[in-house]
Amino acid sequence: MSLFAQRAAEAADLVTVALDELLPRADGPESRLTEAMRYAALGPGKRLRPFFALETGRMFDLEDRPVLRAACALECIHAYSLIHDDLPSMDDDDMRRGRLTVHKAYDEATAILAGDSLQAAAFEILAHPDTHKDGGVRAEMIFKLAQASGARGMCGGQMIDLIGVHDDLGAVARMQRLKTGALIAAAFELPLIIARPKDGERHALLAFAQDLGLAYQIVDDLLDAEGDEATLGKKAGKDAARGKTNYVTLLGAEAARTRLELLVEQTKAHLEPFGAAAEFLRDSVDFVLERRS
Amino acid sequence: MSLFAQRAAEAADLVTVALDELLPRADGPESRLTEAMRYAALGPGKRLRPFFALETGRMFDLEDRPVLRAACALECIHAYSLIHDDLPSMDDDDMRRGRLTVHKAYDEATAILAGDSLQAAAFEILAHPDTHKDGGVRAEMIFKLAQASGARGMCGGQMIDLIGVHDDLGAVARMQRLKTGALIAAAFELPLIIARPKDGERHALLAFAQDLGLAYQIVDDLLDAEGDEATLGKKAGKDAARGKTNYVTLLGAEAARTRLELLVEQTKAHLEPFGAAAEFLRDSVDFVLERRS
Repeated sequence: MSLFAQRAAEAADLVTVALDELLPRADGPESRLTEAMRYAALGPGKRLRPFFALETGRMFDLEDRPVLRAACALECIHAYSLIHDDLPSMDDDDMRRGRLTVHKAYDEATAILAGDSLQAAAFEILAHPDTHKDGGVRAEMIFKLAQASGARGMCGGQMIDLIGVHDDLGAVARMQRLKTGALIAAAFELPLIIARPKDGERHALLAFAQDLGLAYQIVDDLLDAEGDEATLGKKAGKDAARGKTNYVTLLGAEAARTRLELLVEQTKAHLEPFGAAAEFLRDSVDFVLERRS
Repeated sequence: MSLFAQRAAEAADLVTVALDELLPRADGPESRLTEAMRYAALGPGKRLRPFFALETGRMFDLEDRPVLRAACALECIHAYSLIHDDLPSMDDDDMRRGRLTVHKAYDEATAILAGDSLQAAAFEILAHPDTHKDGGVRAEMIFKLAQASGARGMCGGQMIDLIGVHDDLGAVARMQRLKTGALIAAAFELPLIIARPKDGERHALLAFAQDLGLAYQIVDDLLDAEGDEATLGKKAGKDAARGKTNYVTLLGAEAARTRLELLVEQTKAHLEPFGAAAEFLRDSVDFVLERRS
């Protein structure tokens, strides 16, 4: 296992253990709900956003606990968004990460409530005094995460995706920035709120986050077009089958790949100011590039 | 119009105007989403939780703006819960407050996203520095609201309601405490976080909130059993038709009414320490009792 893969696996374990502690236990007559929340948030997953948050925290020598709790909040939002996106009235997916989606393993109503409760849990975790001694820091992290996940962030992006965009690279880019880019950026922004670095470092890291989010999406679109269902753990070719426009349907796979190569150089260049401290973030670009699911 | 009705109408107007300012405007390709959020949150409604918050703020001479913003956050959570509760996989309601429910006026996917975005908006509003100069106060309000609306609060109560409770007054009471009681209590708790009153006053007001929430629910169950569809603005007799247990199906209308009468005296008694300052909260008990929808 490469050093990077080891570090990423460690981060994923840390976050899964912490989330297991933080999420409500399955007891009481509402245990069906807490079970579904745990099924979604503690199941297999790359925990990519938590990894970005933890690595950013390390770069700025932040205390472990605040960043770990921020990472858990990010994963709660991500998990809730997957539950809701998979619903029959949205993307209608039966499988996710090789397992039944929540509405298939439970039912639609439970899935909706589990997503709703995971969103509330994200803000409850951030708001708790254990997250940071300074309430202003906690409130600022909550503000950022709420913005990134609401109507002008992730939910807005999903709305644009459902309406569909047509033959317009600008619209596809806006959709990506909102739907996946905003939450990936938040994974860097939350620890930056604690670290309060110089403006130059802040801008460099956020530029990295933005380009990385875009690269992630192009890889996603390539995998959807060319990926193998068994490896993906979900259906492939969905966008084309639904007549949806994405980077690959719009540019073609070849041009999308060329764009991706250029983007990768640019993405890594943003990390120059951080030198060796950014080693694992630099490697995460290759990880995103080489992922098969 | 009674003084109380005037005061309640003023509060409702204040909150509607403030929410109109705070919610995202309908522009950009995601405007379908922001329109649906506005349709749900700015439409007709009693704005009962905001009224409780504003009256509590007045009793403690709090500044207007922090309490008004807390009231808006409460209404966002309430509006989101109605959207999701009305969905076909939940209570499957076509009408709400005499208008089409959000999934009927728009579609299911938009309704789910509008609820999700309103939840995020609630926390974004509370987290903003305009809500209170002390970040610790903002974070504490967020913590309380997240708890009241999550798996151990409103969502948990809705889960119990969906599973159904049978012939057990304790279970019906727990469902009510979580499903509607927690958010009604939060309407008092949020301003109390700003006011930081003596423990005695805090406990008295929270006991009032709890009993009021219970009274509200019994009236709700009576209206569901005996109310008139045109006045209600939604279907009546739903619980019995679905074989659901509530206070009226369990106790019978007569015994439920007797219980309600006893409860009303007890509820008002909690307000004694506040004297004349609690006049409008005292009247709100009669308002809850006499409501027809």
